[in-house]
Amino acid sequence: MTRPFYAIVPAGGSGTRLWPLSRSRRPKFLLPLPGPRTMIQETLHRLSPVCSDTNMFVITGVAHATSIARQLPALEEDQIVIEPMARGTGPAIGLGVALAERRDPDAIVGSFAADHYVERPDAFVDTVRAAIEVAEQDYLVTIGIQPTFAETGYGYICAGDELGCYYNITSSRVEEFKEKPDLATAERYVASGQYLWNASMFVWKASFFMHEMRRLLPDVATALTTIVDDWDTPRREQTLAEIWPTIEDVTIDHGILERSNHVAVVPGSFGWSDLGDWHGVGKIIQNGNANGSENVVIDTHLLATDARNLVIFGNGRPIAVVGLDDIVVVDTDDALLVCNRSHAQQVKSIVDLLKQRGSTELI
Amino acid sequence: MTRPFYAIVPAGGSGTRLWPLSRSRRPKFLLPLPGPRTMIQETLHRLSPVCSDTNMFVITGVAHATSIARQLPALEEDQIVIEPMARGTGPAIGLGVALAERRDPDAIVGSFAADHYVERPDAFVDTVRAAIEVAEQDYLVTIGIQPTFAETGYGYICAGDELGCYYNITSSRVEEFKEKPDLATAERYVASGQYLWNASMFVWKASFFMHEMRRLLPDVATALTTIVDDWDTPRREQTLAEIWPTIEDVTIDHGILERSNHVAVVPGSFGWSDLGDWHGVGKIIQNGNANGSENVVIDTHLLATDARNLVIFGNGRPIAVVGLDDIVVVDTDDALLVCNRSHAQQVKSIVDLLKQRGSTELI
Repeated sequence: MTRPFYAIVPAGGSGTRLWPLSRSRRPKFLLPLPGPRTMIQETLHRLSPVCSDTNMFVITGVAHATSIARQLPALEEDQIVIEPMARGTGPAIGLGVALAERRDPDAIVGSFAADHYVERPDAFVDTVRAAIEVAEQDYLVTIGIQPTFAETGYGYICAGDELGCYYNITSSRVEEFKEKPDLATAERYVASGQYLWNASMFVWKASFFMHEMRRLLPDVATALTTIVDDWDTPRREQTLAEIWPTIEDVTIDHGILERSNHVAVVPGSFGWSDLGDWHGVGKIIQNGNANGSENVVIDTHLLATDARNLVIFGNGRPIAVVGLDDIVVVDTDDALLVCNRSHAQQVKSIVDLLKQRGSTELI
Repeated sequence: MTRPFYAIVPAGGSGTRLWPLSRSRRPKFLLPLPGPRTMIQETLHRLSPVCSDTNMFVITGVAHATSIARQLPALEEDQIVIEPMARGTGPAIGLGVALAERRDPDAIVGSFAADHYVERPDAFVDTVRAAIEVAEQDYLVTIGIQPTFAETGYGYICAGDELGCYYNITSSRVEEFKEKPDLATAERYVASGQYLWNASMFVWKASFFMHEMRRLLPDVATALTTIVDDWDTPRREQTLAEIWPTIEDVTIDHGILERSNHVAVVPGSFGWSDLGDWHGVGKIIQNGNANGSENVVIDTHLLATDARNLVIFGNGRPIAVVGLDDIVVVDTDDALLVCNRSHAQQVKSIVDLLKQRGSTELI
C-alpha cells in the first residue's frame, strides 16, 4: 500500500503535576523532558520514519502557538493549526483529519499527543505501521498500551476478537472502552491480559473517519467541512471565528470511538509514559542511566550526603541534599519545590493552593 | 559597688553548619538569627542594661571588621579592635582587658561571644550581675550553662565549693575544666548535677586578670602592655604589626583559666544556645512561636501539603514542600540546601565537599 500518512499532534494540557517547571504558559510538551529535545520536538522526531515533515499538523490553542512555531521551525505556518477556543478532542482532531483529507483523499491519519514519552522509538514505529495496516481495512484504530501495573488514572480498552497480525503485533476488535477504574478493578483488568491503557493514540483513513463522523456527529462534520472549504481562501479566519464557537464540545472517545462498531486496537509495548508526575520523570531518566539507581541531576551540581534516589531539576546554582532519600527538588527562577517522590501526585494540590491565593503568575 | 563594667565581644568563627546562609565572608554573628537583629547586634543589645555603649569592645579579624562597623553604628571606630591575625582567645580577650584597664584601672570586664542566642535576656543580665559580685572578690569568673541534655560538643565545668549567692544564683569555685566528653561521660556529668557547659563567658576585674596573666603568660602580658602603651599614639598600627605576630597562640582556657586557682563559676539558666546547626535554629524559633510545633518560615511564602515541622529560610520566592516532615530548606542567591533535621550536623560535610571542589565562592 502507498497511501500517504499524515500525523496530527494535539498540543494542550497544563501539566500541573510537573509544577514549578510546567506552568499554564509553559506546559509539559514545551519542556525538555527528559531532554535534550522538548516533548513536542521529540514527538515529531519519533514520527519522522513514518511521516514526512510536510504531512504533520500540530493542533493547539492560542496560548502556545507561538512557542510551538519557534520550537518546530521545520513546519510551515499552515501546519500549526490554532483553535480559537478549546472544543474537546473531537473537533480538534476532526479538523486535522478534515484538512488531511482535503489535501489528499486517500490519506491515512494518525493522532499522537505532544507530551508522551516513548522509550523505544523503533517499536513505536512498528506499532504505527501495524495500525496503518489495520486502518486500511476501514477500522478506527487505537494504539493501546500494554499495562505494566494497575494504574487507576487511565481509561482502559478491552480487546475482543483478533483481527490480523502485522509487524509481529496482533490486532483485535475493541470489545469495550472502560472509564478510569478503581484499584481492584484495575488489578483485575491487568491480571486478565485482555485490557490495554487508552493513551489516545489513533490511526484511521481520513475518508472512513469523516464517514463515521457524518453518521455519529453530523453537526460537527458539517461545521468542519464548512471550515475546511474556506481554509485556503481569505475567509479562513472569519469562518473559523464564526463556526468554531458553535461546535459541540465533545471528546473523540465519547463522540465517535465508543459509538462506532468499526473500532480496533493494536497493542503497543514501546516503553510508553505520559510523564504524569516528577516521580515518573525521575524513573524514566533513571532507566536511561547506566546505573538505574543513581540520582537524576539536571542543570545543577548536586552535593549529596547520606542522600539517594534523588530527582533534581536545577536552575544553574548548586543544590545540597543532606540525609534525605527519594525526594524531588525542582528549582526555577520564581518558585522552588521539595517533594517526597511517593507524594508526587500531590504537587497538583500546590497549584490549587496558588490558585486560591490568586498567585496567577506562578501557575 | 560602682566599678565600671566593660564588655568584650570576640567575633569570629565560620559557622559552616549554617551553610548556605552562613559563609566564611558572612559568618553566623552577622546574620539575623533568629532575627530581627543580627546575632552581634543582639549580643550588644542584651548587654546594654549592664554596660554602656561606650564601654563595649568588639574584637575581630580583618575579614569582618567593616561589616561589623556597619552593623554597629553606635560604636566608635576605636571600639572595634582588629587583630592583624588570629592568635587564639588568650591574646584577643587579653587585649580587650588591657585596653579596658588602661582606660579605667578599676574596670570589671566581661567577655561574651558574638554568636550565641539567649532566650531570657533578663535572666542573663542577673547572671552577669551575680558574676560581677563574685569577680569583685578577685576570682576569674566563668558563666557556666546548666546543661539540658548530654551534649558531647561542648567542654564542661565541674563546680566545687560554694562561694556566695547573689541575685538568687549560687556561685562556686571551679573544681576542674573538662574537655568535650564522650556520650557516656556527658550523661554522667549531666546526671551528677555538678557539671555545667563551658560557653566561654567570663567576668573578672581587669587588674586581677592582668595580674594572673603576668604570672601565667608573662610574655603575652608583656606584649599586650607594649601594644596598649602605644595604642593612642601614632605608633599603634606599627607596634601592633610588629608585636602581634610574635605573641603565643593560646586559648584563654588553656593559658589561664585551667592554671589559675582563683577561678569561680556562676551557673546560668537563660535559654542559651549557640545555634550550632539548622535544627537548633529551628527549635529556637519554634519555641518562640505561640504553637511550638508549627513550621518556621522566614522570608518566603510556604506552600505545604502533607508536610510538618519544617524550617524554611527563603529568599523571597515561594517554596512548596510536599509529603516531607522535619526538613530544613535554605534558599540563597547562589546555593540551595535541603536537609533532614536529624542530619543537620552533616551540613558541615557539604562545605567540605565544596572545599574539595575548590568552589571557594560558595564557602
